[in-house]
Amino acid sequence: MSILLAIQGWDSADWAERFARLAAGREIRVWPDAAAPDGVRYAVCWHPPAGLLAQLPDLEVMFSLGAGADAMLADRDLPDVPLVRIVDPSLTSRMTEWVVLQVLMHHRLQRAYDVQQHDKVWKGLVQPAADAVGVGIMGLGVLGTDAAEKLNILGFDVAGWSRSPKQIPGVACFHGNAGLGPFLARTDILVVLLPLTPDTANMIDYDLLANLRRTNHMGGAALVNAGRGRLQAEEDILRALADGILAGATLDVFHEEPLPPDSPFWTHPKVTVTPHVAADSDPDYLCAYVLRQIENYESGRGLENVVDRVLGY
Amino acid sequence: MSILLAIQGWDSADWAERFARLAAGREIRVWPDAAAPDGVRYAVCWHPPAGLLAQLPDLEVMFSLGAGADAMLADRDLPDVPLVRIVDPSLTSRMTEWVVLQVLMHHRLQRAYDVQQHDKVWKGLVQPAADAVGVGIMGLGVLGTDAAEKLNILGFDVAGWSRSPKQIPGVACFHGNAGLGPFLARTDILVVLLPLTPDTANMIDYDLLANLRRTNHMGGAALVNAGRGRLQAEEDILRALADGILAGATLDVFHEEPLPPDSPFWTHPKVTVTPHVAADSDPDYLCAYVLRQIENYESGRGLENVVDRVLGY
Repeated sequence: MSILLAIQGWDSADWAERFARLAAGREIRVWPDAAAPDGVRYAVCWHPPAGLLAQLPDLEVMFSLGAGADAMLADRDLPDVPLVRIVDPSLTSRMTEWVVLQVLMHHRLQRAYDVQQHDKVWKGLVQPAADAVGVGIMGLGVLGTDAAEKLNILGFDVAGWSRSPKQIPGVACFHGNAGLGPFLARTDILVVLLPLTPDTANMIDYDLLANLRRTNHMGGAALVNAGRGRLQAEEDILRALADGILAGATLDVFHEEPLPPDSPFWTHPKVTVTPHVAADSDPDYLCAYVLRQIENYESGRGLENVVDRVLGY
Repeated sequence: MSILLAIQGWDSADWAERFARLAAGREIRVWPDAAAPDGVRYAVCWHPPAGLLAQLPDLEVMFSLGAGADAMLADRDLPDVPLVRIVDPSLTSRMTEWVVLQVLMHHRLQRAYDVQQHDKVWKGLVQPAADAVGVGIMGLGVLGTDAAEKLNILGFDVAGWSRSPKQIPGVACFHGNAGLGPFLARTDILVVLLPLTPDTANMIDYDLLANLRRTNHMGGAALVNAGRGRLQAEEDILRALADGILAGATLDVFHEEPLPPDSPFWTHPKVTVTPHVAADSDPDYLCAYVLRQIENYESGRGLENVVDRVLGY
């Protein structure tokens, strides 16, 4: 029984080499070159073509090589077998590194100091301490919770928002539609770590951004999106930047990736673009994770982090 | 008995207003306009002119409005009365914010991504997790210890170096001349938070930088100086950058401040300059700290954070 690698957008040959090295004794097939459907028990996927997985009669488990499952759930013919996503302590700490970096860049006015350096201006800017700054995390899963805890340790006044109630020591937790307004009203820097579901698509829109707090040293609110591009209404972000609602935005994800050359985000002076690298994992780690889960499954210990198809994560 | 404000480089009138507001009932004199020497019991200083304090016959306590005392200790006629420096929990957390920000900018290759954004290049770069990166803190006083602890929480492999032995849970502590080599050999990102003393002046020189570890994803070591400008041999930093020993440097402090317009640091593509703002404090807080110490002193509870003139801090 084989493992099929169905990977687009990354180098399939690298992944084939990795699995061959770490999964000694298992047959590895690589779509599209060697993708005979019979005998494929496990599919390891990144943006697989819609409909491909439905053609595998012996499929027992699907793996998504990322923390989000939205790209696979968008396949309307997705087979009714467990879909496992990556929950990786390294992925979590990597995401937190990136979130903390970007929140601090806004808070400590790094882009303003970059401009001053370019202009050879030596001038201190008004700088409150972190406890005067509200950071709000939307999405309190494993990633959002860890980011909230670390930002709290650094002294920020941290709040979180999620669909269902959560409790995190030291973090003001809000939930549901009723909690959204009070959450936004105390948030100067908004961090988006939501899963992408029908409920959250385009949730980060002009009306939401307009409800953020902007009476702060940054001269407006700041947006940091490390979740999914389709969480954000991109025209609305540009409008909020133009209106002064947003003083700045840091975006790791976009509707279309790679970000097209004509996107205004590339050259916007208030926008920092990173190429979907916030939680880039060590590929060897991801491979070992999948193989460990397969061993657990085969030995009867069961699968972890199976996606709930109703919730979407 | 009066408080004399002897402040250069900051706005004396702002400080006079602040002390008048918070020190109700005390006479506040401001050098140079109203600096009659008799009856001055306390001097609150920032870069006071050398010799000024020796002219105050009734002086009992001197305060430096910063964490470092080196500028005042350079006055060879400094009176033999206690010199108190600022130790401010807010100053500590502010410094840690800045240090964590700058360490993460190096680790997460933010400047490389800035260049890619400018060039509209969408490409992920090789990125280990923080636990594969050695961050070394030189100087394990209140500031260095807090930065080490927070960087440790974020997952970095943190080491510290100090003159005398220290112990910080989770941090590999080295000390003295014998400890310097092993400390540097495991450090990819060097953070300088040393006090400026005759022993530490120009300590950050080419030989020291050449002993840092540079087999890392940044393509060289990184230097972050938030201590004092005179800790660093500035020509040596430029040479280490040119030789590839340093992949980047972030400097908040310089031999000459403001940094002169013709300094090569302003325009160096691998250097980030900030204008001595790493631990900028809330001025009201500093004023209240000084007044609280005066009250403690007058009520017999004694002074805190008195500078040891032999150690220099």
